[in-house]
Amino acid sequence: MKSVLEPFFDQVISVKWGPERESVDILDETLLPGKAERIQIRDRAAMVEAIQKLRVRGAPAIGIFAAFGLAVLSRSYPEEKAAFFRKLEEDQKVLSAARPTAVNLSWALERMVRAARAVEEKPAAAVREALFAEAEAIQREDVSICRGIGENGFAILEKIRKKQGEKPLGILTHCNAGTLATSKYGTATAPMYVAIENGWKPEAMHVYCDETRPLLQGARLTSYELSRAGIPTSVQCDDMASLLMQSGKIQVIFVGCDRVADNGDAANKIGTSGLAILAKYYGIPFYVCAPTPTIDRKTKTGADIPIEMRNAEEIKSLWYREPMVPEGVDTSFNPAFDVTDHSLITGILTERGICQAPYGEAFSALGID
Amino acid sequence: MKSVLEPFFDQVISVKWGPERESVDILDETLLPGKAERIQIRDRAAMVEAIQKLRVRGAPAIGIFAAFGLAVLSRSYPEEKAAFFRKLEEDQKVLSAARPTAVNLSWALERMVRAARAVEEKPAAAVREALFAEAEAIQREDVSICRGIGENGFAILEKIRKKQGEKPLGILTHCNAGTLATSKYGTATAPMYVAIENGWKPEAMHVYCDETRPLLQGARLTSYELSRAGIPTSVQCDDMASLLMQSGKIQVIFVGCDRVADNGDAANKIGTSGLAILAKYYGIPFYVCAPTPTIDRKTKTGADIPIEMRNAEEIKSLWYREPMVPEGVDTSFNPAFDVTDHSLITGILTERGICQAPYGEAFSALGID
Repeated sequence: MKSVLEPFFDQVISVKWGPERESVDILDETLLPGKAERIQIRDRAAMVEAIQKLRVRGAPAIGIFAAFGLAVLSRSYPEEKAAFFRKLEEDQKVLSAARPTAVNLSWALERMVRAARAVEEKPAAAVREALFAEAEAIQREDVSICRGIGENGFAILEKIRKKQGEKPLGILTHCNAGTLATSKYGTATAPMYVAIENGWKPEAMHVYCDETRPLLQGARLTSYELSRAGIPTSVQCDDMASLLMQSGKIQVIFVGCDRVADNGDAANKIGTSGLAILAKYYGIPFYVCAPTPTIDRKTKTGADIPIEMRNAEEIKSLWYREPMVPEGVDTSFNPAFDVTDHSLITGILTERGICQAPYGEAFSALGID
Repeated sequence: MKSVLEPFFDQVISVKWGPERESVDILDETLLPGKAERIQIRDRAAMVEAIQKLRVRGAPAIGIFAAFGLAVLSRSYPEEKAAFFRKLEEDQKVLSAARPTAVNLSWALERMVRAARAVEEKPAAAVREALFAEAEAIQREDVSICRGIGENGFAILEKIRKKQGEKPLGILTHCNAGTLATSKYGTATAPMYVAIENGWKPEAMHVYCDETRPLLQGARLTSYELSRAGIPTSVQCDDMASLLMQSGKIQVIFVGCDRVADNGDAANKIGTSGLAILAKYYGIPFYVCAPTPTIDRKTKTGADIPIEMRNAEEIKSLWYREPMVPEGVDTSFNPAFDVTDHSLITGILTERGICQAPYGEAFSALGID
């Protein structure tokens, strides 16, 4: 059955094939919200540039993009197999290095090479076909995982709505863990999109997007996709979250995550841990939406998750007409992520079910290892 | 005895006399941090514009500016007394209306008119002189109140430093409650400036300024004045405060306030209440710096303090090259302030002493009524 959101997903999808699968077609997220421009990328240098400049972003979307990219690049590989695989592995290496911190990137590329190796005895055309098929499989799995998260999140929305009655249900989110960061449903946005597929009127919800400094993913991207899906949406500055919660406008919080440790500590966009502390103080349920592959049981606690520090310029002048911080003032504390303590998390939403503390046991019960 | 900071105060002072006291000389804060430009204002329309466009800002500074302005305007009043006072009261009314929410503005102007009335029998020249003297008295009192707050705050810094040892003492602040919002010491910055006057090396401190969206007073103004005073300073985005506190970099938090209720609830720049909740969670002392005139015992609790909502455009595009929120997305939740519950406040720092819960009794003990 086709989703009522199909036209929306088609419009906003971050990564798809270009015509005849001769290129990768992406929505250039650096131009949003001003311009919604799709670009077709067919050579390796442009692929690396797109990842580094954040034209394509969000861990799952980056993985899918690289997989699509490698398939496209394989079109020009020689028919001779040893040479074919030399090129393949060279491209894998270069694309993997484009943004070394995003685990999905290297994971997707390794998976692509494995898929090619599995049929290495066959003619080049067949190996190429295997690469195209594997890229599509990676994307299909992302859609299915995100939809699973959405179904479990939708059950939560249904419960809250029963208490809430006719009033629109206020949902707070941070950064962008939506269609623009994945393929269709997103992670933190999946409960809302699945609600629409299940017949909720968009007006039954109101989604409050933290603008999410310094890169403004909430202001520029999350509000963009939600409003295109017809869901009533507001953007507020990050320092307004406390008053927003205090004012009774927020019934539930959904955020994405980059890595979850065995004890349930969750790394996500900078600002998430503060939001969780506020939610606890105001008694608002706080859910982390996590595809099971982001649950890393080998990482014991959040203290073992490294925090990427980004360029000081992002705080100082990015997006601004002129520098907004005086010359010489330090802005080097620019962490991309923080870790939310498991004690602050109401539940971790996966495609297999909702996990609650003690998290290690809950993960095992769902067969996550 | 002259303060070692006198050259700094002279450079950064928000409001002073122009040459021959024929104008008011202000540092145009809309141009900071890019340009430090002083402008001389001599007519009423320009005074109103300077207040409305936030060229001069911060409740105490606005009051002082209006008082200086009214004195300057009185130069052109007729010698005939009835006409003199008609002009005086007309200007009082127009200036008062420039920003109706800032209590200091109307308070300072009323005080000016009372000072003139007190000598209304004397020749116009003497009344004019009384206006100039009153304006200077208002500024002098601001300096003295802020210095008092600074002395009490310095005692706190000394105590923390004993525990901290040689490591620089990390101080977090929000918005600008500094020289640029007052005359010299500021309120939240006063402890740091008084520490310098008492021989602390600037390197003994490190002040972390929240950038303070949407108007960026922390990024643009607080870091500007602190770095000019030689104090090591960083700017971080508002959503980084939780990780900053968690990382052990912050030993104490000082914020200003706009109004304190009888029970100690304190209204201040949006974001302050969230910071206080984080501070409580991480066990970091959180002080509100309050000149006694901002303690309003007739307001019983924070729930009785009205919250000013500002223009949605401030979130959407102000300071930005292009709109950073999509067309049609709501940004109307733009509160200028929030209220911090008294249970989250370690102490309220006034020029008369440090108040602690129960606040009503503490205020009475210091003779604040």
